[in-house]
Amino acid sequence: LDLTTWTQTQGRRWPSRIHISRRFLEAAIGARYRVVELASAKSESSYCPARAVIVDGSRPFDRNWYAAMPRLSLIACFNTGYDGIDVDWARQRGIVVTYGRDVNHEDVADFAVGQILNIYRKISIGNRWVHDGEWQSGRRLMTRSLAGLRLGIVGLGSIGNALARRADALRMVTSWWAPRDRPGVSWPRAPSLIELAHGTDVLVIAARANESNRGLISATVLRALGPQGVIINVARGSLVDEAAVIDALRRGTLGAAALDVYRDEPTSHSLWADVPHIYLSPHIAGVTNLAMSRMATLVRSNLDAFFDGKPTLTPVRATL
Amino acid sequence: LDLTTWTQTQGRRWPSRIHISRRFLEAAIGARYRVVELASAKSESSYCPARAVIVDGSRPFDRNWYAAMPRLSLIACFNTGYDGIDVDWARQRGIVVTYGRDVNHEDVADFAVGQILNIYRKISIGNRWVHDGEWQSGRRLMTRSLAGLRLGIVGLGSIGNALARRADALRMVTSWWAPRDRPGVSWPRAPSLIELAHGTDVLVIAARANESNRGLISATVLRALGPQGVIINVARGSLVDEAAVIDALRRGTLGAAALDVYRDEPTSHSLWADVPHIYLSPHIAGVTNLAMSRMATLVRSNLDAFFDGKPTLTPVRATL
Repeated sequence: LDLTTWTQTQGRRWPSRIHISRRFLEAAIGARYRVVELASAKSESSYCPARAVIVDGSRPFDRNWYAAMPRLSLIACFNTGYDGIDVDWARQRGIVVTYGRDVNHEDVADFAVGQILNIYRKISIGNRWVHDGEWQSGRRLMTRSLAGLRLGIVGLGSIGNALARRADALRMVTSWWAPRDRPGVSWPRAPSLIELAHGTDVLVIAARANESNRGLISATVLRALGPQGVIINVARGSLVDEAAVIDALRRGTLGAAALDVYRDEPTSHSLWADVPHIYLSPHIAGVTNLAMSRMATLVRSNLDAFFDGKPTLTPVRATL
Repeated sequence: LDLTTWTQTQGRRWPSRIHISRRFLEAAIGARYRVVELASAKSESSYCPARAVIVDGSRPFDRNWYAAMPRLSLIACFNTGYDGIDVDWARQRGIVVTYGRDVNHEDVADFAVGQILNIYRKISIGNRWVHDGEWQSGRRLMTRSLAGLRLGIVGLGSIGNALARRADALRMVTSWWAPRDRPGVSWPRAPSLIELAHGTDVLVIAARANESNRGLISATVLRALGPQGVIINVARGSLVDEAAVIDALRRGTLGAAALDVYRDEPTSHSLWADVPHIYLSPHIAGVTNLAMSRMATLVRSNLDAFFDGKPTLTPVRATL
C-alpha cells in the first residue's frame, strides 16, 4: 500500500507538528505501508500512487494535492483538529476523513488547569518575585483560592468535559455554553455566551473551530468578562479576536489572558512584547508524549480498518 | 478580655504573615476583645494583662514573652504550622495551644498541582519560548502527560490527602510514605522514604515539620529520586536539605525542584541565581484570600470557646 505524510506546507518554512511524532508514526505504520514524506519527495511520481495521506488536520489541506494523487481515498488527520480539511469537499469525492478523536483531550484539560493555577495562585509571578529579590524587600503576595472560582467553558466536548470534571475536584463552580445544548449534563448551560462571560471569572475556550465561530471571543465578550476576568484559549486561534485581547489587556479592561493558540502560528514574539498580564505557550496544550503515541496508534488503526474494508474508527461526521 | 497579637519577631525587620490577615483578624475579634499589637506596643504594661496571644505558629515563640504576660493561658496559632511553639513547655504551664487546622490544606494541594503542571507541561518554559522567539525559530516543545506520572507524597495528612485526591482526577499514580501507617487509605504506602523516592517521578513534601524530620529530604533521598526526578516542597524548609538540592540540580543528578518554603525566609535571591531547573515561590502555597478568612474565623471560634469555658475547636494534641 502506498501512503504519504504531509509534513510541510508548500512555501512555508514552518516545520509541522508531525515532525514531533514522525518516529511514532513510522514505528506504527512502517511495517505494513510504504511511506513517502511529501516534504522531501523528489518527484511527483513518488507520491502519485498514494491512497492515503496523514496530515495535520488543523492546517489547510491544499486541494492541488488531490490532483497529484488521483487514487487518494483516505485523509487521516493525526490530531484532533480537522478545521484545515474541507470535509464536504472530500465526501463529494468519496474520500474518507478520519481524525484523532479523544487522543489528548485530558492533556489539554490538564494544561488549562495548569494555566488557571499559574494565574490565580501566582506561580510564575511568585518565581519572579523571589528571583528579583521582591520577597526579601518585604513585600508579600496574596493569592486567590480556586475554591468558588467561577469557571465558564465555551464548548462542552471532550476537552470541556474533562476540564469540568477537574474543576469539580478543584472546588471551582462550572457553567458552560455551546450553540447546542447537551441534555443530561450536570453543569448548567448559560443562556448565551455573553451571559456566560458576565457570570464567570475565567473563560476557557474549548470549542471546535469552524467558519461559523471565527472571532467568537470578541471585544463584546471580553467586556462582559470584565477587568478581573481571565480568558484561556486551548482550542484554536481563530476563535479569539487577538487584537481585541491585546487592546483589552493594554487598557486594563481584561484581567489576564493565557493563549496556547494564535491567529498565525508560530505567533510573532514582537506582537506580545509589551502586552501586560499575558501568558503565552507555543501550542503545546495537547502535545504530550502520550498524545503522540495515541495519535500514531489511532492513525494505524484507521488505516488498517480502511484498507481491510472495515469502517474506520474515528471518521469525521457530516458537518450538518 | 485582653489579647495580644504577635506580628514581629524582635530584632528582625521581616513583617510577619499576620500583616496580610490583620484586617480579617480585627474584623473577626475586635468586637469582643481588646487587641494590642505587640510589634507596636509602647510599653510592657500594655500587653502585661494579656490572656491570649495570636501568633504565626511556624515562627519561634520567644519564652520571654511568657514572663512578660503572666496571665497568658492561650496561644492561638492562626496558621496550620505550630512548629515554632514548644507545645510540651506550654502544656506544663497550663497554656492551651490551638492551630489553624484544615484552613488551607486544599489550597496548598492546589499549589502543588500547579507546580506539577508547570514543570511537566512546561508552562513557564513555554511562555519564555514564545517571548524569546524560540517558537518562531522553528523549535517545538514536547511535554509529558500527567497520565501515569508516579507521584510520591511524603506525609499523608490533610494536605497529602487533598493532593492524592487531585492526583487521581489528573490520572497520576500515587504512593506515599510517613513514619506511621494509616489504615484504610486506598493509596499504597511505600516501605520507606528511600523506596518511595526510588519508585516515583515526583516527590511532594507535605509532612508536618518537627525536630525529628529536619533534613529528611537528604542527598541520599535525592539520589534515589534520580536525574529525572522532581521534588516539590510545600511543607517547611527544615524538611529539605537545601544545599543538597542546589548541589544535585547543579550536577544534573536531580531533574527539577519547586520550593515554596526555605531554611531561611525570605530566602536570599542570590542563593538561587544560577541554579538550573529551580522553581521558586515566596511561601504562598497556603496564602489565599479564603485561607486568611478561615484562619480569622477559626481563631475567633477558638478564643470564644476558650473564654466561654468550653473545649477549643482545634487544640494541638500531645506530641507523643
